[in-house]
Amino acid sequence: MIVDHLKPPYYAVIFTTVMSDDTGGYIETAEKMEVLAKKQKGYLGIESARKEVGITVSYWQNLDDIAVWKNNIEHAEARILGRKKWYKKYQLRICKVEREYGFDNLTSN
Amino acid sequence: MIVDHLKPPYYAVIFTTVMSDDTGGYIETAEKMEVLAKKQKGYLGIESARKEVGITVSYWQNLDDIAVWKNNIEHAEARILGRKKWYKKYQLRICKVEREYGFDNLTSN
Repeated sequence: MIVDHLKPPYYAVIFTTVMSDDTGGYIETAEKMEVLAKKQKGYLGIESARKEVGITVSYWQNLDDIAVWKNNIEHAEARILGRKKWYKKYQLRICKVEREYGFDNLTSN
Repeated sequence: MIVDHLKPPYYAVIFTTVMSDDTGGYIETAEKMEVLAKKQKGYLGIESARKEVGITVSYWQNLDDIAVWKNNIEHAEARILGRKKWYKKYQLRICKVEREYGFDNLTSN
């Protein structure tokens, strides 16, 4: 799903990952974290795709909201498991969305 | 491929897309645009993934470099074709990367 209803400025967390071979329990935890993120203050939306790398972009009202979500206990536990088990490598970027352009071809099927 | 050698601040362009049914010529043009982007001043890297949505994040030194790439003739022509033909919907966000964290499990295979 594309998140298309936001007005800058707001924040994006770009989380790019390469998985390890041991993905047991990963999907369940990822889904749980998404459900949990949606309940957080300042959460604005999420976009996700995977091929060789996975890219998940979550959108947030401000840096404080991102910090609170980072320090959420269940999220912190999932992150420890992620580093121990699921992720071979990742990069996480915190960005301020300054401008935004959208296109929606309503005539397309 | 994960881009992991950059130091904030720099810029990220998050391009999220939903394809139409008519994808003829898309892959060739997308590859050509990636080759062309890499030759631009201020280009720093690209990350890309696709499932239901496609997410491509390109990284740039500054906003001027992004504007020059936006105005590149071949890029502009590809963008027109994209709106006419390949994309059902897209969202493009220009963001300032303020912080970055990396993890690389060198002990993993």
